[in-house]
Amino acid sequence: MDFDVAYEGKAKQLILLEDDRDHYVQRFKDDATAFNGEKFAQFEGKGALNNAISSFLFEKLEEAGVLTHYIERRTETDMLIRKLEIVPLEVVVRNHVAGSLGRRTGLKEGSKVDPPIVETYYKKDELGDPILADVHIKMLDIVDDEELDQIKQAALRVNDVLQPIFEKAGIRLVDFKLEFGVDSAGAIILGDEISPDTSRLWDIESGDSLDKDVFRYDKGELIEAYEEVAERLGVEV
Amino acid sequence: MDFDVAYEGKAKQLILLEDDRDHYVQRFKDDATAFNGEKFAQFEGKGALNNAISSFLFEKLEEAGVLTHYIERRTETDMLIRKLEIVPLEVVVRNHVAGSLGRRTGLKEGSKVDPPIVETYYKKDELGDPILADVHIKMLDIVDDEELDQIKQAALRVNDVLQPIFEKAGIRLVDFKLEFGVDSAGAIILGDEISPDTSRLWDIESGDSLDKDVFRYDKGELIEAYEEVAERLGVEV
Ligand SMILES: Nc1ncnc2c1ncn2[C@@H]1O[C@H](COP(=O)(O)OP(=O)(O)OP(=O)(O)O)[C@@H](O)[C@H]1O
Ligand SMILES: Nc1ncnc2c1ncn2[C@@H]1O[C@H](COP(=O)(O)OP(=O)(O)OP(=O)(O)O)[C@@H](O)[C@H]1O
Ligand SMILES: [Mg+2]
Ligand SMILES: [Mg+2]
Repeated sequence: MDFDVAYEGKAKQLILLEDDRDHYVQRFKDDATAFNGEKFAQFEGKGALNNAISSFLFEKLEEAGVLTHYIERRTETDMLIRKLEIVPLEVVVRNHVAGSLGRRTGLKEGSKVDPPIVETYYKKDELGDPILADVHIKMLDIVDDEELDQIKQAALRVNDVLQPIFEKAGIRLVDFKLEFGVDSAGAIILGDEISPDTSRLWDIESGDSLDKDVFRYDKGELIEAYEEVAERLGVEV
Repeated sequence: MDFDVAYEGKAKQLILLEDDRDHYVQRFKDDATAFNGEKFAQFEGKGALNNAISSFLFEKLEEAGVLTHYIERRTETDMLIRKLEIVPLEVVVRNHVAGSLGRRTGLKEGSKVDPPIVETYYKKDELGDPILADVHIKMLDIVDDEELDQIKQAALRVNDVLQPIFEKAGIRLVDFKLEFGVDSAGAIILGDEISPDTSRLWDIESGDSLDKDVFRYDKGELIEAYEEVAERLGVEV
Protein backbone atom coordinates (compact mmCIF):
# COMPACT_ATOMS: atom_id res chain seq x y z
CA MET A 1 0.00 0.00 0.00
CA ASP A 2 1.12 3.51 -0.77
CA PHE A 3 1.54 5.97 2.02
CA ASP A 4 1.98 9.73 2.27
CA VAL A 5 4.86 11.09 4.24
CA ALA A 6 3.64 14.30 5.87
CA TYR A 7 7.06 15.11 7.30
CA GLU A 8 10.48 13.60 6.75
CA GLY A 9 12.84 14.51 9.58
CA LYS A 10 16.38 13.51 10.39
CA ALA A 11 15.36 10.62 12.65
CA LYS A 12 11.70 9.95 11.93
CA GLN A 13 8.95 10.08 9.34
CA LEU A 14 5.40 11.15 10.04
CA ILE A 15 3.03 9.19 7.86
CA LEU A 16 -0.54 10.23 7.05
CA LEU A 17 -3.39 7.78 7.58
CA GLU A 18 -6.23 7.43 5.12
CA ASP A 19 -9.52 8.88 6.38
CA ASP A 20 -7.94 9.95 9.66
CA ARG A 21 -6.65 13.50 10.01
CA ASP A 22 -6.19 13.25 13.78
CA HIS A 23 -3.35 10.73 13.87
CA TYR A 24 0.00 9.93 12.33
CA VAL A 25 2.20 6.90 12.13
CA GLN A 26 5.56 7.95 13.57
CA ARG A 27 8.23 5.80 11.91
CA PHE A 28 11.71 5.65 13.47
CA LYS A 29 14.59 5.62 10.97
CA ASP A 30 18.05 4.07 11.24
CA ASP A 31 19.67 7.43 10.40
CA ALA A 32 21.79 9.17 12.99
CA THR A 33 22.85 12.82 12.74
CA ALA A 34 24.80 15.02 15.13
CA PHE A 35 26.13 18.58 15.38
CA ASN A 36 23.12 19.98 13.52
CA GLY A 37 23.47 17.49 10.67
CA GLU A 38 27.23 17.80 10.12
CA LYS A 39 27.88 14.20 11.17
CA PHE A 40 25.76 11.48 9.59
CA ALA A 41 25.58 7.67 9.66
CA GLN A 42 23.13 4.78 9.56
CA PHE A 43 22.80 2.02 12.15
CA GLU A 44 20.70 -0.99 11.27
CA GLY A 45 18.20 -1.59 14.03
CA LYS A 46 18.36 1.86 15.63
CA GLY A 47 14.85 2.75 14.46
CA ALA A 48 13.38 -0.39 15.99
CA LEU A 49 15.27 0.13 19.26
CA ASN A 50 14.16 3.76 19.58
CA ASN A 51 10.57 2.86 18.74
CA ALA A 52 10.57 0.14 21.38
CA ILE A 53 12.21 2.25 24.09
CA SER A 54 10.11 5.31 23.32
CA SER A 55 6.88 3.29 23.31
CA PHE A 56 7.81 1.71 26.64
CA LEU A 57 8.52 5.09 28.24
CA PHE A 58 5.38 6.73 26.83
CA GLU A 59 3.35 3.85 28.30
CA LYS A 60 4.94 4.42 31.71
CA LEU A 61 4.16 8.14 31.44
CA GLU A 62 0.54 7.50 30.43
CA GLU A 63 0.17 5.14 33.42
CA ALA A 64 1.45 7.97 35.62
CA GLY A 65 -1.16 10.33 34.21
CA VAL A 66 1.06 12.39 31.89
CA LEU A 67 -0.73 13.41 28.68
CA THR A 68 1.21 12.17 25.65
CA HIS A 69 0.58 11.77 21.93
CA TYR A 70 1.26 8.03 22.18
CA ILE A 71 -1.53 5.62 21.22
CA GLU A 72 0.20 2.30 20.56
CA ARG A 73 3.16 0.55 19.07
CA ARG A 74 2.22 -0.71 15.63
CA THR A 75 5.23 -2.45 14.10
CA GLU A 76 8.94 -2.80 14.84
CA THR A 77 9.63 0.79 13.71
CA ASP A 78 6.20 2.45 13.92
CA MET A 79 4.01 3.89 16.62
CA LEU A 80 0.58 5.43 16.26
CA ILE A 81 0.39 8.96 17.65
CA ARG A 82 -2.05 11.80 17.98
CA LYS A 83 -1.41 14.70 15.63
CA LEU A 84 -0.31 17.85 17.45
CA GLU A 85 0.68 21.36 16.55
CA ILE A 86 4.24 21.17 17.82
CA VAL A 87 5.47 24.09 19.97
CA PRO A 88 8.85 25.11 18.48
CA LEU A 89 10.77 24.61 21.72
CA GLU A 90 13.24 21.90 22.65
CA VAL A 91 12.56 21.47 26.34
CA VAL A 92 15.59 20.05 28.15
CA VAL A 93 15.49 18.64 31.68
CA ARG A 94 18.83 18.26 33.46
CA ASN A 95 19.66 16.16 36.52
CA HIS A 96 23.42 16.32 36.09
CA VAL A 97 25.81 18.72 34.36
CA ALA A 98 26.85 17.71 30.85
CA GLY A 99 27.53 19.30 27.46
CA SER A 100 26.50 22.91 27.01
CA LEU A 101 25.43 23.28 30.65
CA GLY A 102 29.03 22.69 31.70
CA ARG A 103 30.33 25.16 29.13
CA ARG A 104 27.72 27.73 30.18
CA THR A 105 28.19 27.51 33.93
CA GLY A 106 31.74 26.24 34.41
CA LEU A 107 30.31 23.51 36.67
CA LYS A 108 31.96 20.11 36.60
CA GLU A 109 30.70 17.48 34.14
CA GLY A 110 28.55 15.01 36.03
CA SER A 111 27.88 17.15 39.09
CA LYS A 112 24.32 17.00 40.37
CA VAL A 113 21.78 19.62 39.37
CA ASP A 114 19.56 19.80 42.42
CA PRO A 115 16.74 20.62 42.00
CA PRO A 116 16.61 19.57 38.34
CA ILE A 117 16.27 22.45 35.87
CA VAL A 118 14.29 22.95 32.67
CA GLU A 119 15.94 24.78 29.77
CA THR A 120 14.22 25.92 26.59
CA TYR A 121 15.82 26.05 23.15
CA TYR A 122 14.36 27.51 19.98
CA LYS A 123 13.56 24.59 17.64
CA LYS A 124 14.89 26.27 14.49
CA ASP A 125 17.65 24.46 12.64
CA GLU A 126 18.64 27.53 10.59
CA LEU A 127 19.44 29.39 13.85
CA GLY A 128 21.23 26.38 15.35
CA ASP A 129 18.62 25.79 18.09
CA PRO A 130 19.76 28.66 20.37
CA ILE A 131 18.81 28.73 24.05
CA LEU A 132 15.92 31.04 24.95
CA ALA A 133 15.06 32.75 28.20
CA ASP A 134 11.41 33.33 29.12
CA VAL A 135 11.59 36.90 27.78
CA HIS A 136 12.54 35.61 24.31
CA ILE A 137 9.71 33.07 24.30
CA LYS A 138 7.34 35.89 25.18
CA MET A 139 8.68 38.33 22.58
CA LEU A 140 8.57 35.63 19.90
CA ASP A 141 5.00 34.83 20.98
CA ILE A 142 5.77 31.09 20.95
CA VAL A 143 3.47 30.28 23.87
CA ASP A 144 1.81 32.41 26.53
CA ASP A 145 2.91 32.55 30.17
CA GLU A 146 0.43 29.94 31.30
CA GLU A 147 1.34 27.48 28.56
CA LEU A 148 5.04 27.95 29.27
CA ASP A 149 4.43 27.24 32.90
CA GLN A 150 2.44 24.10 32.02
CA ILE A 151 5.24 22.92 29.73
CA LYS A 152 7.89 23.37 32.43
CA GLN A 153 5.75 21.65 35.06
CA ALA A 154 5.03 18.76 32.70
CA ALA A 155 8.73 18.40 31.88
CA LEU A 156 9.60 18.12 35.57
CA ARG A 157 6.77 15.63 36.05
CA VAL A 158 8.16 13.51 33.19
CA ASN A 159 11.52 13.60 34.94
CA ASP A 160 9.94 12.47 38.22
CA VAL A 161 8.44 9.47 36.44
CA LEU A 162 11.43 8.50 34.28
CA GLN A 163 14.32 9.08 36.64
CA PRO A 164 13.49 6.15 39.00
CA ILE A 165 12.74 3.84 36.04
CA PHE A 166 16.24 4.42 34.71
CA GLU A 167 17.81 4.29 38.16
CA LYS A 168 16.34 0.84 38.78
CA ALA A 169 17.95 -0.19 35.48
CA GLY A 170 21.33 1.03 36.73
CA ILE A 171 21.21 4.03 34.39
CA ARG A 172 21.68 7.67 35.30
CA LEU A 173 19.21 9.92 33.46
CA VAL A 174 21.61 12.85 33.03
CA ASP A 175 19.42 14.98 30.75
CA PHE A 176 16.80 14.64 28.03
CA LYS A 177 14.97 16.68 25.41
CA LEU A 178 11.19 16.84 25.09
CA GLU A 179 8.85 18.41 22.57
CA PHE A 180 5.34 19.44 23.42
CA GLY A 181 2.43 20.24 21.18
CA VAL A 182 -1.09 21.55 21.37
CA ASP A 183 -4.04 19.30 20.47
CA SER A 184 -7.23 20.44 18.76
CA ALA A 185 -8.75 21.29 22.15
CA GLY A 186 -5.77 23.51 23.05
CA ALA A 187 -4.29 21.14 25.64
CA ILE A 188 -0.51 20.85 26.07
CA ILE A 189 0.54 17.26 25.20
CA LEU A 190 3.95 15.58 25.20
CA GLY A 191 4.99 14.63 21.64
CA ASP A 192 8.00 13.43 19.66
CA GLU A 193 10.15 10.67 21.21
CA ILE A 194 12.09 9.80 24.36
CA SER A 195 15.01 7.59 23.45
CA PRO A 196 18.82 7.29 23.65
CA ASP A 197 18.83 9.67 20.63
CA THR A 198 17.30 12.45 22.72
CA SER A 199 18.76 11.86 26.17
CA ARG A 200 22.04 11.38 27.99
CA LEU A 201 22.12 8.01 29.75
CA TRP A 202 25.15 7.00 31.78
CA ASP A 203 25.83 3.59 33.28
CA ILE A 204 25.67 4.30 37.03
CA GLU A 205 28.61 1.98 37.75
CA SER A 206 31.06 2.73 34.95
CA GLY A 207 29.87 6.16 33.83
CA ASP A 208 29.85 4.93 30.22
CA SER A 209 27.51 6.62 27.77
CA LEU A 210 24.55 4.52 26.62
CA ASP A 211 23.15 7.15 24.25
CA LYS A 212 23.83 9.14 21.08
CA ASP A 213 27.07 10.51 22.59
CA VAL A 214 28.50 7.10 21.62
CA PHE A 215 28.02 8.24 18.02
CA ARG A 216 28.77 11.97 18.56
CA TYR A 217 32.14 11.31 20.19
CA ASP A 218 32.99 7.86 18.73
CA LYS A 219 32.80 6.17 22.13
CA GLY A 220 31.91 2.68 20.90
CA GLU A 221 29.12 0.74 19.22
CA LEU A 222 25.83 2.63 19.12
CA ILE A 223 23.60 -0.40 18.62
CA GLU A 224 25.22 -2.27 21.51
CA ALA A 225 24.63 0.70 23.79
CA TYR A 226 20.98 1.11 22.74
CA GLU A 227 20.42 -2.65 23.11
CA GLU A 228 21.86 -2.45 26.60
CA VAL A 229 19.35 0.28 27.50
CA ALA A 230 16.42 -1.73 26.09
CA GLU A 231 17.50 -4.89 27.87
CA ARG A 232 18.05 -3.23 31.23
CA LEU A 233 14.65 -1.49 31.03
CA GLY A 234 13.05 -4.83 30.16
CA VAL A 235 11.87 -3.59 26.76
CA GLU A 236 11.01 -6.18 24.09
CA VAL A 237 12.28 -4.94 20.73
CA MET B 1 51.48 60.78 44.76
CA ASP B 2 51.56 57.04 44.48
CA PHE B 3 48.32 55.14 44.11
CA ASP B 4 47.27 51.54 44.42
CA VAL B 5 45.36 49.96 41.57
CA ALA B 6 42.91 47.54 43.15
CA TYR B 7 41.72 46.26 39.77
CA GLU B 8 43.00 46.79 36.25
CA GLY B 9 40.33 45.93 33.68
CA LYS B 10 40.22 46.22 29.93
CA ALA B 11 38.60 49.68 29.95
CA LYS B 12 39.02 51.02 33.46
CA GLN B 13 41.16 51.00 36.58
CA LEU B 14 39.80 50.95 40.10
CA ILE B 15 42.11 52.94 42.37
CA LEU B 16 42.22 52.61 46.15
CA LEU B 17 41.96 55.71 48.32
CA GLU B 18 44.10 56.21 51.40
CA ASP B 19 42.15 55.86 54.65
CA ASP B 20 38.91 55.13 52.81
CA ARG B 21 37.89 51.54 52.22
CA ASP B 22 34.36 52.45 51.09
CA HIS B 23 35.19 54.19 47.82
CA TYR B 24 37.25 53.84 44.67
CA VAL B 25 38.42 56.18 41.98
CA GLN B 26 37.18 54.68 38.71
CA ARG B 27 39.61 55.76 35.96
CA PHE B 28 38.55 55.40 32.32
CA LYS B 29 41.32 54.25 29.98
CA ASP B 30 41.82 54.97 26.28
CA ASP B 31 42.03 51.24 25.53
CA ALA B 32 39.36 49.61 23.39
CA THR B 33 38.86 45.86 23.16
CA ALA B 34 36.27 43.80 21.32
CA PHE B 35 35.33 40.16 20.73
CA ASN B 36 36.43 39.13 24.21
CA GLY B 37 39.81 40.86 23.85
CA GLU B 38 40.72 39.56 20.37
CA LYS B 39 40.65 43.04 18.84
CA PHE B 40 42.57 45.82 20.59
CA ALA B 41 43.39 49.49 20.00
CA GLN B 42 43.89 52.79 21.81
CA PHE B 43 42.00 56.03 21.13
CA GLU B 44 43.32 59.21 22.70
CA GLY B 45 40.48 60.90 24.53
CA LYS B 46 38.15 57.90 24.79
CA GLY B 47 38.66 57.65 28.56
CA ALA B 48 37.74 61.30 29.09
CA LEU B 49 34.69 61.02 26.84
CA ASN B 50 33.39 57.90 28.58
CA ASN B 51 33.98 59.41 32.01
CA ALA B 52 32.09 62.56 31.02
CA ILE B 53 29.17 60.71 29.40
CA SER B 54 28.95 58.12 32.18
CA SER B 55 29.06 60.82 34.90
CA PHE B 56 26.32 62.78 33.12
CA LEU B 57 24.06 59.72 32.85
CA PHE B 58 24.67 58.61 36.45
CA GLU B 59 23.71 62.13 37.58
CA LYS B 60 20.45 61.90 35.60
CA LEU B 61 19.74 58.50 37.15
CA GLU B 62 20.46 59.75 40.67
CA GLU B 63 18.08 62.69 40.06
CA ALA B 64 15.43 60.16 39.02
CA GLY B 65 15.93 58.23 42.26
CA VAL B 66 17.94 55.28 40.91
CA LEU B 67 20.58 54.07 43.37
CA THR B 68 24.03 54.18 41.75
CA HIS B 69 27.65 53.94 42.90
CA TYR B 70 28.38 57.39 41.47
CA ILE B 71 29.54 60.13 43.83
CA GLU B 72 31.18 62.75 41.60
CA ARG B 73 33.37 63.40 38.62
CA ARG B 74 36.88 64.13 39.86
CA THR B 75 39.11 64.76 36.86
CA GLU B 76 38.92 64.37 33.08
CA THR B 77 39.24 60.59 33.32
CA ASP B 78 38.24 59.86 36.93
CA MET B 79 35.03 59.51 38.88
CA LEU B 80 34.61 58.80 42.58
CA ILE B 81 32.41 55.77 43.23
CA ARG B 82 31.14 53.71 46.10
CA LYS B 83 32.79 50.34 46.46
CA LEU B 84 30.42 47.45 45.74
CA GLU B 85 30.57 43.72 45.63
CA ILE B 86 29.80 43.31 41.95
CA VAL B 87 27.18 40.70 41.00
CA PRO B 88 28.78 38.64 38.20
CA LEU B 89 25.99 39.32 35.70
CA GLU B 90 26.01 41.50 32.61
CA VAL B 91 22.48 42.83 32.58
CA VAL B 92 21.43 43.83 29.07
CA VAL B 93 18.34 45.92 28.28
CA ARG B 94 17.10 45.85 24.69
CA ASN B 95 14.74 48.29 22.95
CA HIS B 96 15.55 47.15 19.41
CA VAL B 97 16.93 43.96 17.89
CA ALA B 98 20.68 43.96 17.27
CA GLY B 99 23.66 41.60 17.51
CA SER B 100 23.12 38.32 19.31
CA LEU B 101 19.38 38.95 19.80
CA GLY B 102 18.94 38.89 16.03
CA ARG B 103 20.98 35.71 15.73
CA ARG B 104 19.05 34.08 18.59
CA THR B 105 15.52 34.96 17.46
CA GLY B 106 15.79 35.44 13.69
CA LEU B 107 14.08 38.84 14.13
CA LYS B 108 15.17 41.67 11.87
CA GLU B 109 18.02 43.95 12.96
CA GLY B 110 16.54 47.20 14.21
CA SER B 111 12.99 45.94 14.79
CA LYS B 112 11.39 47.19 17.98
CA VAL B 113 11.43 45.09 21.14
CA ASP B 114 8.16 46.06 22.80
CA PRO B 115 8.07 45.87 25.75
CA PRO B 116 11.83 46.14 26.29
CA ILE B 117 13.48 42.98 27.61
CA VAL B 118 16.21 42.31 30.16
CA GLU B 119 18.77 39.59 29.43
CA THR B 120 21.38 38.26 31.83
CA TYR B 121 24.85 37.05 30.88
CA TYR B 122 27.39 35.37 33.13
CA LYS B 123 30.26 37.84 33.70
CA LYS B 124 33.04 35.29 33.26
CA ASP B 125 35.59 35.99 30.55
CA GLU B 126 36.94 32.43 30.55
CA LEU B 127 33.46 31.13 29.62
CA GLY B 128 32.92 33.89 27.03
CA ASP B 129 30.11 35.61 28.98
CA PRO B 130 27.35 33.09 28.08
CA ILE B 131 23.68 33.98 28.38
CA LEU B 132 21.94 32.66 31.51
CA ALA B 133 18.29 31.90 32.14
CA ASP B 134 16.85 32.41 35.62
CA VAL B 135 17.30 28.69 36.41
CA HIS B 136 21.07 28.99 35.80
CA ILE B 137 21.36 32.07 38.02
CA LYS B 138 19.56 30.14 40.74
CA MET B 139 21.65 26.97 40.40
CA LEU B 140 24.87 29.01 40.38
CA ASP B 141 23.61 30.82 43.47
CA ILE B 142 24.60 34.20 41.98
CA VAL B 143 21.71 36.09 43.55
CA ASP B 144 18.44 35.00 45.15
CA ASP B 145 15.03 35.36 43.49
CA GLU B 146 14.26 38.65 45.17
CA GLU B 147 17.60 40.22 44.26
CA LEU B 148 17.24 39.03 40.65
CA ASP B 149 13.83 40.61 40.50
CA GLN B 150 15.20 43.87 41.93
CA ILE B 151 18.01 43.87 39.37
CA LYS B 152 15.61 43.38 36.46
CA GLN B 153 13.22 46.04 37.74
CA ALA B 154 16.11 48.47 38.24
CA ALA B 155 17.42 47.78 34.73
CA LEU B 156 14.03 48.60 33.22
CA ARG B 157 13.82 51.73 35.37
CA VAL B 158 17.26 52.82 34.08
CA ASN B 159 15.94 52.31 30.56
CA ASP B 160 12.85 54.43 31.30
CA VAL B 161 15.10 57.26 32.45
CA LEU B 162 17.77 57.04 29.73
CA GLN B 163 15.68 56.29 26.66
CA PRO B 164 14.02 59.77 26.48
CA ILE B 165 17.33 61.52 27.22
CA PHE B 166 18.88 59.86 24.18
CA GLU B 167 15.78 60.34 22.07
CA LYS B 168 15.83 64.11 22.69
CA ALA B 169 19.44 64.02 21.48
CA GLY B 170 18.35 62.32 18.26
CA ILE B 171 19.88 59.01 19.37
CA ARG B 172 18.17 55.63 19.51
CA LEU B 173 19.12 53.69 22.63
CA VAL B 174 19.13 50.26 20.98
CA ASP B 175 20.57 48.30 23.91
CA PHE B 176 22.96 48.66 26.82
CA LYS B 177 24.78 46.60 29.43
CA LEU B 178 24.62 47.28 33.16
CA GLU B 179 26.41 45.82 36.16
CA PHE B 180 24.93 45.84 39.60
CA GLY B 181 26.56 45.33 42.96
CA VAL B 182 25.67 44.93 46.58
CA ASP B 183 26.72 47.56 49.13
CA SER B 184 27.74 46.88 52.73
CA ALA B 185 24.08 47.13 53.80
CA GLY B 186 23.03 44.51 51.23
CA ALA B 187 21.27 46.95 48.88
CA ILE B 188 21.38 46.42 45.11
CA ILE B 189 23.17 49.40 43.50
CA LEU B 190 23.97 50.21 39.87
CA GLY B 191 27.74 50.14 39.27
CA ASP B 192 30.30 50.16 36.47
CA GLU B 193 29.72 52.60 33.57
CA ILE B 194 27.10 53.61 31.00
CA SER B 195 28.86 54.84 27.88
CA PRO B 196 29.19 54.26 24.12
CA ASP B 197 31.52 51.40 25.09
CA THR B 198 28.67 49.53 26.78
CA SER B 199 25.64 50.47 24.67
CA ARG B 200 24.39 50.52 21.10
CA LEU B 201 23.51 54.06 20.07
CA TRP B 202 22.14 54.72 16.59
CA ASP B 203 21.59 58.12 14.99
CA ILE B 204 17.78 58.25 14.68
CA GLU B 205 17.96 59.92 11.24
CA SER B 206 20.78 58.04 9.51
CA GLY B 207 20.92 54.84 11.57
CA ASP B 208 24.69 55.28 11.90
CA SER B 209 26.37 53.72 14.92
CA LEU B 210 27.63 56.16 17.55
CA ASP B 211 29.13 53.52 19.82
CA LYS B 212 31.79 50.82 20.09
CA ASP B 213 30.39 49.07 16.99
CA VAL B 214 32.31 51.79 15.07
CA PHE B 215 35.46 50.08 16.37
CA ARG B 216 34.13 46.48 16.31
CA TYR B 217 33.12 46.64 12.65
CA ASP B 218 35.43 49.42 11.37
CA LYS B 219 32.52 51.76 10.66
CA GLY B 220 34.44 55.05 11.01
CA GLU B 221 36.21 57.20 13.59
CA LEU B 222 35.48 56.15 17.16
CA ILE B 223 36.42 59.45 18.79
CA GLU B 224 34.26 61.44 16.38
CA ALA B 225 31.28 59.22 17.16
CA TYR B 226 31.77 59.45 20.94
CA GLU B 227 32.24 63.25 20.66
CA GLU B 228 28.98 63.45 18.73
CA VAL B 229 27.20 61.61 21.56
CA ALA B 230 28.68 63.92 24.20
CA GLU B 231 27.83 67.03 22.22
CA ARG B 232 24.26 66.02 21.49
CA LEU B 233 23.65 65.10 25.14
CA GLY B 234 25.10 68.48 26.16
CA VAL B 235 27.94 66.88 28.10
CA GLU B 236 31.03 69.00 28.87
CA VAL B 237 34.13 66.84 28.43
N1 LIG C 1 2.40 14.31 17.66
C1 LIG C 1 3.03 15.02 16.72
N2 LIG C 1 2.31 15.74 15.81
C2 LIG C 1 2.96 16.45 14.86
N3 LIG C 1 4.29 16.52 14.74
C3 LIG C 1 5.04 15.82 15.61
C4 LIG C 1 4.45 15.03 16.63
N4 LIG C 1 5.45 14.47 17.36
C5 LIG C 1 6.61 14.88 16.80
N5 LIG C 1 6.38 15.70 15.75
C6 LIG C 1 7.37 16.31 14.86
O1 LIG C 1 7.77 15.32 13.94
C7 LIG C 1 9.12 15.50 13.55
C8 LIG C 1 9.88 14.23 13.85
O2 LIG C 1 10.92 14.09 12.96
P1 LIG C 1 12.43 14.17 13.40
O3 LIG C 1 12.59 14.04 14.88
O4 LIG C 1 13.16 13.26 12.51
O5 LIG C 1 12.68 15.67 13.02
P2 LIG C 1 14.13 16.31 13.08
O6 LIG C 1 14.92 15.94 11.91
O7 LIG C 1 14.65 16.09 14.45
O8 LIG C 1 13.80 17.74 12.82
P3 LIG C 1 13.31 18.65 13.88
O9 LIG C 1 14.48 19.56 14.08
O10 LIG C 1 12.09 19.24 13.24
O11 LIG C 1 13.02 17.78 15.11
C9 LIG C 1 9.65 16.68 14.38
O12 LIG C 1 9.58 17.86 13.62
C10 LIG C 1 8.66 16.72 15.53
O13 LIG C 1 8.57 18.02 16.07
N1 LIG D 1 31.38 50.24 42.37
C1 LIG D 1 32.18 49.24 42.06
N2 LIG D 1 32.80 48.53 43.04
C2 LIG D 1 33.62 47.50 42.73
N3 LIG D 1 33.90 47.12 41.48
C3 LIG D 1 33.30 47.78 40.46
C4 LIG D 1 32.43 48.86 40.70
N4 LIG D 1 31.99 49.32 39.50
C5 LIG D 1 32.56 48.54 38.55
N5 LIG D 1 33.37 47.63 39.12
C6 LIG D 1 34.18 46.60 38.43
O1 LIG D 1 35.35 47.26 38.01
C7 LIG D 1 35.84 46.68 36.81
C8 LIG D 1 35.94 47.77 35.78
O2 LIG D 1 36.95 47.48 34.89
P1 LIG D 1 36.68 47.15 33.37
O3 LIG D 1 35.31 47.54 32.95
O4 LIG D 1 37.86 47.66 32.63
O5 LIG D 1 36.73 45.58 33.48
P2 LIG D 1 36.70 44.67 32.23
O6 LIG D 1 38.01 44.59 31.56
O7 LIG D 1 35.48 45.04 31.44
O8 LIG D 1 36.56 43.33 32.83
P3 LIG D 1 35.29 42.80 33.34
O9 LIG D 1 35.01 41.68 32.37
O10 LIG D 1 35.63 42.38 34.74
O11 LIG D 1 34.29 43.94 33.25
C9 LIG D 1 34.83 45.65 36.39
O12 LIG D 1 35.27 44.37 36.83
C10 LIG D 1 33.59 46.06 37.16
O13 LIG D 1 32.74 44.97 37.43
MG1 LIG E 1 13.63 15.53 16.15
MG1 LIG F 1 33.84 46.16 32.02
